Amino acid sequence: MSGAHFHSVLVTGANRGIGLEMVKQLLQLREPPKWVFATCRDPHGGRSQELRSLASKHPCLVILQLESTDEASIKAAAKEVEVHLAGSGLNLLINNAGIMPPSTLESVDKEDMLSVYRINLIGPMLVTQAFLPMLKTAAKKSNRKGLSCSRAAIINVSTIGSSIGRPPSMAMFPVISYRCSKTALNMLTRCQSLEYKDDGILCVALHPGWVKTEMGTEKAELTVQESVQGIIQVLSSINEEKNSRLVDWEGRIVPW
Amino acid sequence: MSGAHFHSVLVTGANRGIGLEMVKQLLQLREPPKWVFATCRDPHGGRSQELRSLASKHPCLVILQLESTDEASIKAAAKEVEVHLAGSGLNLLINNAGIMPPSTLESVDKEDMLSVYRINLIGPMLVTQAFLPMLKTAAKKSNRKGLSCSRAAIINVSTIGSSIGRPPSMAMFPVISYRCSKTALNMLTRCQSLEYKDDGILCVALHPGWVKTEMGTEKAELTVQESVQGIIQVLSSINEEKNSRLVDWEGRIVPW
Repeated sequence: MSGAHFHSVLVTGANRGIGLEMVKQLLQLREPPKWVFATCRDPHGGRSQELRSLASKHPCLVILQLESTDEASIKAAAKEVEVHLAGSGLNLLINNAGIMPPSTLESVDKEDMLSVYRINLIGPMLVTQAFLPMLKTAAKKSNRKGLSCSRAAIINVSTIGSSIGRPPSMAMFPVISYRCSKTALNMLTRCQSLEYKDDGILCVALHPGWVKTEMGTEKAELTVQESVQGIIQVLSSINEEKNSRLVDWEGRIVPW
Repeated sequence: MSGAHFHSVLVTGANRGIGLEMVKQLLQLREPPKWVFATCRDPHGGRSQELRSLASKHPCLVILQLESTDEASIKAAAKEVEVHLAGSGLNLLINNAGIMPPSTLESVDKEDMLSVYRINLIGPMLVTQAFLPMLKTAAKKSNRKGLSCSRAAIINVSTIGSSIGRPPSMAMFPVISYRCSKTALNMLTRCQSLEYKDDGILCVALHPGWVKTEMGTEKAELTVQESVQGIIQVLSSINEEKNSRLVDWEGRIVPW
């Protein structure tokens, strides 16, 4: 793991799929984070059962209500995180929450486009705005040099389907509202990386692979465990070299 | 002009800036289109004076009210265009209307992101959906082979600021909501090109240069005349080779 250590990590959409598995594997690290903040829209609902059960066994796991399109909810979560961190800053922000409703060029409508953009682009943007001061604090207080997830990083979960240069066909991947939103998220990531590099914050867009989750369906190539094992390795090793890029779960660069 | 001829062209946002100049130069071609449909939000307002005055001199110029985020308005315009075309199809759709309000990573908010996405991405998407049957008709009825603007084409006006691979800095180009929306428009263009290639429709995203318009300001590099002269040449010559790409006003490919 090349000496990587994440002191504090926040994962959105953490009650299922890739988000939940990230939380699990972070807690299983030989040197687990001091704090794992797992956010979801409905922490008390039936779909957050597994996350609650994990939290009952791991005192470092803090579950927080966060609806990424609702600024009041983000602010409340940020306030709670700040109290736990007690001035030490947040090392790693993983904007994982997202949706992927089916939509073709013919069927897609205004409301579909807007709702997907709200969750997949505006959500990560607002969450990052709220946690940026804590990321800057972490970068400043770190004794590590350069850019790394052990120091301070924003990871925006994207998709290979956002690649304009190497796009899957519409028949293969008929989710136009999702693809447009994730391509926009790549641009947001790139702009964040240009802006926050001097603050010591690494920013990448991450393709987790095609994963057997509710979103990826059972036909997918990877189990969620395999995908997240790869992702944790990438987060442990990524530095300036791949900053500001779209990388996949095995650390390979995907063209924009 | 390599034998190019645009039988019918529709330009959105045609009452000022690049849109208005496109209409002017199309009318001045040695062999002007049979129909130029110039759409704008308020054809009767003070800001459409010049367009109305042009129409009074050119019977082939038809001004239509079109608010690109309002489906009813798009449908009404499409109906009128259909009547004029009398079954001959639409050759060239230029989605030019757009906005660029200032916004930084810190200042941008949800409403800004949504309103810019509505106009810059959803607008062109809805307009294309409405005019697609006419584009398909034009492609089918054309005696030209391959892809060209003389046969059938969708031109989405984008920007070099949408390039994730070669992005201007945030300080140089502090319009994050605009940049994200135009990057998403590039993805939409790419998906359209994959989907409509077999229908004989060319699809490109177009960077018009940095132009002295209300949007580009007086500091810009190009006059609107220079930019549109280049654009008309590009439209006259572009074919399969640069289909499905982001090209600039001089025909150069800009990386995604």
